[in-house]
Amino acid sequence: MGMIGGGKDAFIGAIHRLAFNMDGLVEIVCGALSINPAVAKESGEALFLPADRIYLNYEEMIEKESQLPADVRMDFVTIVTPNFAHFAPAKLALQKGFHVVIEKPITFNLAEALELKQLVQQTGLLLCLTHTYSGYPMVKQAKAMVAGGVLGNIRKVWVEYPQGWLSKLSEREGNAQAAWRTDPSKSGKAGCIGDIGTHAAHLSEYITGLKITQLCADLNIMVQGRMLDDDGNVLLKFDNGAAGVLMASQVAAGEENALKIRVYGEKGGLEWAQMEPNTLIVKWLDAPMQILRAGSNYGDRLSSYATHNCRTPGGHPEGYLEAFANIYRNFALTLSAKLEGNIAPKEAADFPGVEDGIRGMAFIDTVVASGQSELKWTAFAEV
Amino acid sequence: MGMIGGGKDAFIGAIHRLAFNMDGLVEIVCGALSINPAVAKESGEALFLPADRIYLNYEEMIEKESQLPADVRMDFVTIVTPNFAHFAPAKLALQKGFHVVIEKPITFNLAEALELKQLVQQTGLLLCLTHTYSGYPMVKQAKAMVAGGVLGNIRKVWVEYPQGWLSKLSEREGNAQAAWRTDPSKSGKAGCIGDIGTHAAHLSEYITGLKITQLCADLNIMVQGRMLDDDGNVLLKFDNGAAGVLMASQVAAGEENALKIRVYGEKGGLEWAQMEPNTLIVKWLDAPMQILRAGSNYGDRLSSYATHNCRTPGGHPEGYLEAFANIYRNFALTLSAKLEGNIAPKEAADFPGVEDGIRGMAFIDTVVASGQSELKWTAFAEV
Amino acid sequence: MGMIGGGKDAFIGAIHRLAFNMDGLVEIVCGALSINPAVAKESGEALFLPADRIYLNYEEMIEKESQLPADVRMDFVTIVTPNFAHFAPAKLALQKGFHVVIEKPITFNLAEALELKQLVQQTGLLLCLTHTYSGYPMVKQAKAMVAGGVLGNIRKVWVEYPQGWLSKLSEREGNAQAAWRTDPSKSGKAGCIGDIGTHAAHLSEYITGLKITQLCADLNIMVQGRMLDDDGNVLLKFDNGAAGVLMASQVAAGEENALKIRVYGEKGGLEWAQMEPNTLIVKWLDAPMQILRAGSNYGDRLSSYATHNCRTPGGHPEGYLEAFANIYRNFALTLSAKLEGNIAPKEAADFPGVEDGIRGMAFIDTVVASGQSELKWTAFAEV
Amino acid sequence: MGMIGGGKDAFIGAIHRLAFNMDGLVEIVCGALSINPAVAKESGEALFLPADRIYLNYEEMIEKESQLPADVRMDFVTIVTPNFAHFAPAKLALQKGFHVVIEKPITFNLAEALELKQLVQQTGLLLCLTHTYSGYPMVKQAKAMVAGGVLGNIRKVWVEYPQGWLSKLSEREGNAQAAWRTDPSKSGKAGCIGDIGTHAAHLSEYITGLKITQLCADLNIMVQGRMLDDDGNVLLKFDNGAAGVLMASQVAAGEENALKIRVYGEKGGLEWAQMEPNTLIVKWLDAPMQILRAGSNYGDRLSSYATHNCRTPGGHPEGYLEAFANIYRNFALTLSAKLEGNIAPKEAADFPGVEDGIRGMAFIDTVVASGQSELKWTAFAEV
Repeated sequence: MGMIGGGKDAFIGAIHRLAFNMDGLVEIVCGALSINPAVAKESGEALFLPADRIYLNYEEMIEKESQLPADVRMDFVTIVTPNFAHFAPAKLALQKGFHVVIEKPITFNLAEALELKQLVQQTGLLLCLTHTYSGYPMVKQAKAMVAGGVLGNIRKVWVEYPQGWLSKLSEREGNAQAAWRTDPSKSGKAGCIGDIGTHAAHLSEYITGLKITQLCADLNIMVQGRMLDDDGNVLLKFDNGAAGVLMASQVAAGEENALKIRVYGEKGGLEWAQMEPNTLIVKWLDAPMQILRAGSNYGDRLSSYATHNCRTPGGHPEGYLEAFANIYRNFALTLSAKLEGNIAPKEAADFPGVEDGIRGMAFIDTVVASGQSELKWTAFAEV
Repeated sequence: MGMIGGGKDAFIGAIHRLAFNMDGLVEIVCGALSINPAVAKESGEALFLPADRIYLNYEEMIEKESQLPADVRMDFVTIVTPNFAHFAPAKLALQKGFHVVIEKPITFNLAEALELKQLVQQTGLLLCLTHTYSGYPMVKQAKAMVAGGVLGNIRKVWVEYPQGWLSKLSEREGNAQAAWRTDPSKSGKAGCIGDIGTHAAHLSEYITGLKITQLCADLNIMVQGRMLDDDGNVLLKFDNGAAGVLMASQVAAGEENALKIRVYGEKGGLEWAQMEPNTLIVKWLDAPMQILRAGSNYGDRLSSYATHNCRTPGGHPEGYLEAFANIYRNFALTLSAKLEGNIAPKEAADFPGVEDGIRGMAFIDTVVASGQSELKWTAFAEV
Repeated sequence: MGMIGGGKDAFIGAIHRLAFNMDGLVEIVCGALSINPAVAKESGEALFLPADRIYLNYEEMIEKESQLPADVRMDFVTIVTPNFAHFAPAKLALQKGFHVVIEKPITFNLAEALELKQLVQQTGLLLCLTHTYSGYPMVKQAKAMVAGGVLGNIRKVWVEYPQGWLSKLSEREGNAQAAWRTDPSKSGKAGCIGDIGTHAAHLSEYITGLKITQLCADLNIMVQGRMLDDDGNVLLKFDNGAAGVLMASQVAAGEENALKIRVYGEKGGLEWAQMEPNTLIVKWLDAPMQILRAGSNYGDRLSSYATHNCRTPGGHPEGYLEAFANIYRNFALTLSAKLEGNIAPKEAADFPGVEDGIRGMAFIDTVVASGQSELKWTAFAEV
Repeated sequence: MGMIGGGKDAFIGAIHRLAFNMDGLVEIVCGALSINPAVAKESGEALFLPADRIYLNYEEMIEKESQLPADVRMDFVTIVTPNFAHFAPAKLALQKGFHVVIEKPITFNLAEALELKQLVQQTGLLLCLTHTYSGYPMVKQAKAMVAGGVLGNIRKVWVEYPQGWLSKLSEREGNAQAAWRTDPSKSGKAGCIGDIGTHAAHLSEYITGLKITQLCADLNIMVQGRMLDDDGNVLLKFDNGAAGVLMASQVAAGEENALKIRVYGEKGGLEWAQMEPNTLIVKWLDAPMQILRAGSNYGDRLSSYATHNCRTPGGHPEGYLEAFANIYRNFALTLSAKLEGNIAPKEAADFPGVEDGIRGMAFIDTVVASGQSELKWTAFAEV
């Protein structure tokens, strides 16, 4: 694999490395790790990359790797650059025959995402979008339970994602993470709702299997001087008639990364919180609440999707990095199967891709449009 | 005290009796406990009321009691009839010089509530509205902390009230509680949002000291055949610019009575959940979360409002009945002080009254209007 | 009812009043509320007792009340004096034909407890011991589940009761509660282990239906200058071969009143914590954990013992005072039935009595003996 | 690195690989992965080891590797064989100049452990014992807080480790993990108390910095037909006079891996639970409880030991594998520094070693002796 972006001190690049290292299925063999040549070089050396495969830009990397023998060259690229620099390397990689992993959001805007979709369809290559939270075993369990109908028809979805780290104008105080995320030229037309609201929206659709059809958004800039929303509250309607609420905030002072979802159907409800990810709370209309735990051995009570995405027995907590590693592991298993002419198990094939990316970009477009509208409801449109 | 409504098998009447009995400050001396004479009689006897003070209707009770000597007659009435039958006895009681306690909602509509306000102002009598949840000590603590400015300016209010007990069409299956609450002729123009949404709205204003200025409501009937909303999601704006979300549902299958509020300001946030009421979680932007506990002895860290409303040392959980009893206790202390020409301590004087009732009725009006509007925002208007 | 002890400012007397007031089944009609005549008088007036039934000592009260007509005189006495002053009034009351409620521990030593047992057997009168924690609905549920065999044979009992309020030498700093509890002449031969260890031991036997047969105690005085144990750790053996651990501490700095018990059998385990008393956690060997909640409506899943001891629907938390009130309510229902020649329902008849008191005194004796022994095991002996 | 044991289907070998892969600091270059040659070969191939470095036994591996050039040969061995087969390869590796990582318990008995200590002292090589739980960041935080004196003198240590997976006679039902752990010839003289009791004991000494000086053990075999203890309860005395209780059970039906420790001092207490490892609860005698969270940014409130052992920001849960990886990471950082003639940072140098192993073996000896003794206290002796 070749990495684009993710040089020294880049937050998300380091996370990707922890994630793909874990299971020993993915090896980084080359990189274009920074647009700063010195940083690119230094970062490559720190990763023990051979000198001739430390590239200074992604064009060079993709070009040169494509000329290497098949058993030597990278199999895929991982793109961990800022949002605005996702599209170009992804496009080139696909055009040159490389599979692609991209950090979310997939692109800078919807048009780019749609173009990538076309390329994926034309080339038959794999594209994986690292919507980390869908990699947790108990999220898989929740999805499987809803799909299995145990809750009956879904009536209500309640997803919240409060963080507090942008409670001050940190982008003016030297916080690099804050700086690019609050800058429209780097982050896109949305702030909080794009950065974390998209995770919440993705999770709501991923778990329920439903699609958002219209929404009503209240986007706010709570910290004076900021250019993009740092808080958003959104009413949702789903295609089966279910109602939803999505809250995302980066000014919920004192909150860490408290993504949480609750889904209620006719017969019961599910509750999952990212900060205690190995637990899935199942509430029943007519029976006591149950606590399902990742890794536990309950006969057939846990879905194969949950057990496939868990490495340790119950009571040995897995976390964010394991969830992230699950995305890579599933992508790698699917890719290996494909390269060997096989079909991956359905559990491995379940990772986010270009369609999820398009839903995400369309979500951002729709929320921003709704935020500016005086009408209550704005239709969710992918094009 | 004389009780109007609350005969045998009436849910809320029994709760009121548990609440006012507890502290030994209030004694029931007469009652018009049911419109069914047999039930009225039987219920009065079960409460050991003297035969001549078991009345068959509230008019008779108020009339006859008003003719008794001052040291014998009841001091106040408690009205625990269904919503549509709050106004008339309250009005008559005030006109005849009796103080009044009313179960919420104060009246059937806003106009009645405004008329009661006039009567209260004219007579100088006390009116207490049993918004139970504001009686919890840690709700008092939260209110005191916000008022004291420790969170800085409030930016976000997040209040949720999921219940599951109306997940089926129980009103057609002999559930008396369900029947009147889902019947517009008894309950009023709103269902869930009136029954429990008003508690959530009251709590949000009570704790923050802010006023809702506009809102955007999505009201739903999730159970086919029902006549009133059983689920509602509301975006809020407060008078200081804070954003809010209020969710109330009676079809959140598997939920009990999970009222919960979170308030975030510039410097931190508060979280309180009714089902674990002795705990107040305080989150700080730059310091570890703290867990404040009712009854605990932290020097001056707990507000006098919190300690006044707590009977036992830390670790001896108090609950819903104690919160309810606090409303009665504070009303009784204030009334005693008034009768003796004194002024009650500020902690005792803090119980909900006619203004809270008017806000509640106006909230229902505004939410219902917004639910029917195609515009995003509807102004909150008390008149 | 007539109250002995419990004058103004006495902690536990006020708790008793909150508890017996709640359900309106018990009325205080007279009292010998303090050995200080002025306090006795003032306290009686504060409770609105008639002047001629405010007595200055218990002998006078029992004597005079016994001469009143049967429909006027008190039915029973409640004894809330310090430990050393339980026996004499209890004995006299029984001798004069009054039923008795006593705050735990039943007496100052085992011999007195055995004497009371004889009197109870001879007179056929009721004696109720207010082991509050056995009054919680989910403790009743736990007991019913163990008795019903759902856990299989019990293997392990793990009960802990940490408090922190004696972490300093508070008895020398004017804390009246600390002063008598740490004074052997008032409290008896044990400190912490008598004050709260007995609650833990009672709960372990109450829930499991087992009897402790031998134990191994490590009693400690952690705060220099104290005269009685403030910390104790005890290994237990039960009559079915189960092993147990009991920990009680009043120097667990920062703990409130964290009584908690876990019971494990062949098929699963139970966990109950006093500070979240409405929840019973049920763990299964081969199935997901369940959360049983007081007041919930699960068809027949909750025992009649649990539902009988609960006043409000699920999600309306009841607490310590309601548990206390349950003891009084059950005693009062049993007494009423007895007075009317009926037999109380089995759920009402389930309140602690003289046998529980004897077990408690024997537990203290055995623990203290074991604490002084060099041998590992000391047999638990009631005589 | 070369791995000894840990072939396909070996539980703990796979865990070690997940752990040392994660940070990219350790690479497996050779292995003697099974005593079964076919399994050794197959397992080596699955790890992409070169054919000539897949060895069939550890003697061959250590011998041949020692003859390779310094920049090619393995730097250290990782021993993940069953308990009885730890000592011989460790001894040989040290004798041949290789550093050693060993899964706990260090050896089969105390004598072997003492011999390893001598070898470590003679050779100056590193020996790392993978006491995983000491690798958690909030365990480091707890240790740092106790060492910093914020709790004052420690009075009480309360450590519990309930599991339920041996509630049945699984060793007779084809469970390989159960089979060797309950077999004295493979596991040693202790069962549960050796397998998990040693973790609890290690954690109690690691966090408090105290040493156990005497103990009183009640060891039980709860499942009929088992040969080693499956449940143990132990009273502890520490060298500063603190009292302790240690409970370990593998028949606590329904429990997963619920290691938990509480430490109380004069001024407050700490509570940490392995199944929610990113949280450290800090209780204060005179102030509200605080919740410290791994990865959080509280200025200098978290110890450098905690932050060093954390990879992600607050709210991104890390778990068991990260704790395990921390042991490897710290060992690798210390080894690298040593190889380069530097001294590792103190935070990296903090990993369990031969002394911890000796304490563990002595703990097993002392507990087993105490379990057989009729006296209450048995002195803890390392030799």
